[in-house]
Amino acid sequence: MDPRTGRSETSRLETFADGVMAIAITLLILEIDVPEAGPGRSLASALADQWPSYAAYAVSFITIGIIWVNHHHLFGVIERTTHAFLVLNVLFLMTIAALPWPTAVVAANIRDEAGRTAAAVAYGLTMTSIAIMFNAVWRYAAAGLRLLPPDVDPSELRRVHRSYLSGPITYAVATLLALWSAWLSMGIFAALAGYWLLPWSSPRIERLRSG
Amino acid sequence: MDPRTGRSETSRLETFADGVMAIAITLLILEIDVPEAGPGRSLASALADQWPSYAAYAVSFITIGIIWVNHHHLFGVIERTTHAFLVLNVLFLMTIAALPWPTAVVAANIRDEAGRTAAAVAYGLTMTSIAIMFNAVWRYAAAGLRLLPPDVDPSELRRVHRSYLSGPITYAVATLLALWSAWLSMGIFAALAGYWLLPWSSPRIERLRSG
Amino acid sequence: MDPRTGRSETSRLETFADGVMAIAITLLILEIDVPEAGPGRSLASALADQWPSYAAYAVSFITIGIIWVNHHHLFGVIERTTHAFLVLNVLFLMTIAALPWPTAVVAANIRDEAGRTAAAVAYGLTMTSIAIMFNAVWRYAAAGLRLLPPDVDPSELRRVHRSYLSGPITYAVATLLALWSAWLSMGIFAALAGYWLLPWSSPRIERLRSG
Amino acid sequence: MDPRTGRSETSRLETFADGVMAIAITLLILEIDVPEAGPGRSLASALADQWPSYAAYAVSFITIGIIWVNHHHLFGVIERTTHAFLVLNVLFLMTIAALPWPTAVVAANIRDEAGRTAAAVAYGLTMTSIAIMFNAVWRYAAAGLRLLPPDVDPSELRRVHRSYLSGPITYAVATLLALWSAWLSMGIFAALAGYWLLPWSSPRIERLRSG
Repeated sequence: MDPRTGRSETSRLETFADGVMAIAITLLILEIDVPEAGPGRSLASALADQWPSYAAYAVSFITIGIIWVNHHHLFGVIERTTHAFLVLNVLFLMTIAALPWPTAVVAANIRDEAGRTAAAVAYGLTMTSIAIMFNAVWRYAAAGLRLLPPDVDPSELRRVHRSYLSGPITYAVATLLALWSAWLSMGIFAALAGYWLLPWSSPRIERLRSG
Repeated sequence: MDPRTGRSETSRLETFADGVMAIAITLLILEIDVPEAGPGRSLASALADQWPSYAAYAVSFITIGIIWVNHHHLFGVIERTTHAFLVLNVLFLMTIAALPWPTAVVAANIRDEAGRTAAAVAYGLTMTSIAIMFNAVWRYAAAGLRLLPPDVDPSELRRVHRSYLSGPITYAVATLLALWSAWLSMGIFAALAGYWLLPWSSPRIERLRSG
Repeated sequence: MDPRTGRSETSRLETFADGVMAIAITLLILEIDVPEAGPGRSLASALADQWPSYAAYAVSFITIGIIWVNHHHLFGVIERTTHAFLVLNVLFLMTIAALPWPTAVVAANIRDEAGRTAAAVAYGLTMTSIAIMFNAVWRYAAAGLRLLPPDVDPSELRRVHRSYLSGPITYAVATLLALWSAWLSMGIFAALAGYWLLPWSSPRIERLRSG
Repeated sequence: MDPRTGRSETSRLETFADGVMAIAITLLILEIDVPEAGPGRSLASALADQWPSYAAYAVSFITIGIIWVNHHHLFGVIERTTHAFLVLNVLFLMTIAALPWPTAVVAANIRDEAGRTAAAVAYGLTMTSIAIMFNAVWRYAAAGLRLLPPDVDPSELRRVHRSYLSGPITYAVATLLALWSAWLSMGIFAALAGYWLLPWSSPRIERLRSG
């Protein structure tokens, strides 16, 4: 804690990261079109036709939300910052802030046979980048307990490493599967978002400190 | 309060929730078109024609604002968080962040006889979802005083439960009424927004602690 | 200050208000078109033609910025909140969050003789509403020293009242002038934004406490 | 530190500045178009054709991110605020909040021979304005140690002055070069963004206090 301001050293980084994640998550809604009733087509059916937009909104919203929850847990154990750590977080946030765009690309193209593969790949690459950068932020902080408290349990640390590492691997595999079936790939992203919502999917990072 | 950071345990959740609600409320203005004067139509009449957009802006803005005030009161008594509680809040915020979209759908379609029913139903379903998720957040926190202080008065707790429960019921009824009259339904949403502004509509959640 | 959280009672209101003002001020840029070079027109001249958009951006940005500075000063003396005060702040923020829209309406119509009066009136009405709501927030807090510390100097309080009251009066007059000349009206809004930037234009609300 | 609120005097300014920078950085993604597959053109090639948008997104994101990191370091030594300092920060934020616009102008025009010079100049002028205002904020705070602690080392202060001053000079030169080659100019902006990411590019402002 900074004795001059009474705030923890990571406080302003958390505020900035929360801001970027809160904005990216809220901008997702802007990508959903506002249809108008026209001759020969009711508004109800126009709204129903947009279901991929709603599904993409929910999957991306939950994914960013879960990343925020995990970032929140991370900063329960990270105690300090360095210039390089701030820079790494900026690059991490760059991948999250990009998510509204592939979300819209998928929603606009998933029902078109010619476009759905490229759209799912763009979505998957963004998701994989987010997962890689999350691991980079964590590994930098954990290496040699650089930004962690000294009382961390090494075996718990290895468990958390493994748990986080499953993210980029799973997302990379789901992205590759898009080349075979875009629907399957997007289904996996949706299933993963649902899975992270479950309490037992949490890596329980707070256990690090009971070592 | 977290002795390491000097901040309450719920502080970062409140910051994130405030961020999402502040952004959703401010994005509402982007849904109002910017008309230009054209041949045979003055800008003044084009601006006047857009009145449903202004009305929808005001109703949605006040609704999110009131939800923010109530969320603020809630976290005056909620003292802790759990992983599941963070996840519930993410799902609650997902419904609030969606509101700019049905607001625009209503503004674009309310004067069109073929579209107004579907638009009002979309608006009502979003409002009802917000109210249901608000209750879910509250009930999770209150169940067995899970996240509340131990000195809560049980009879006051039942009073707050009843007060919050009136939200989803009222909004669900107003949504169903849209099938009969979209104007009536939207009028009820506007009247409810006005009612929540009144000081005596507040559930006075702070009384919980004087038990 | 709240002994439980270690934060002042107005802290979360300030965070929410800062969020809405920061978002409204940053959304202003979205209203400026992105021109492309076309046949017979260079990008340089297309960019130059858009000067009303840049001017409107600067005037609205500075106006919201100055309101933020004043809101900041206000909460240097306001110590408590009530439900009604939170509601008043929500209505105040509703007028600020609306400003990107009349800003875009003015930028799109100021060079069109048929549209500029209506555009300037829309802009002026929004500015006047902001100024009225700012006074409402302040007067509610100050009435009977409801939310102020007890050691406020009554003559200083009257001075601050007069200083803030000049806002809605000036803006209302500038709005009325738009019926005679939209350019004059917009020039006054620009001049006022410039004037508020000057250090001696500040109402020095911190003097309230040296009474 | 303010004894009444337990927060540092600059806390609310930092929150507001963080908000504006977080929003500006996150709005950048809205400027990237969402292509749809059409007859005779695959989505994959449409996505690939948009590479200037991705490059402009990355350069602007990293630039704002680095400015945020530096602003963060600045407020590690700035201890107080004045009305004029708040106003200077508002003007500084006005230049940062404008960046999504020239970013989109460059992305839309960089491959068009007729437009790329004007686009790169618009981008460069915005970058130069940001760098000038950053220096203005810093110089105001440092002049006569107005807002700095009294134990600052004068020779370190001169070193920081020189380090920050290189920003506007470099950006002004890169802007002028756009008149000769827009690609070269944009390449320099990209290279600078990459350079600031390196740990040794930091002006190490925290050394000021070890004087």
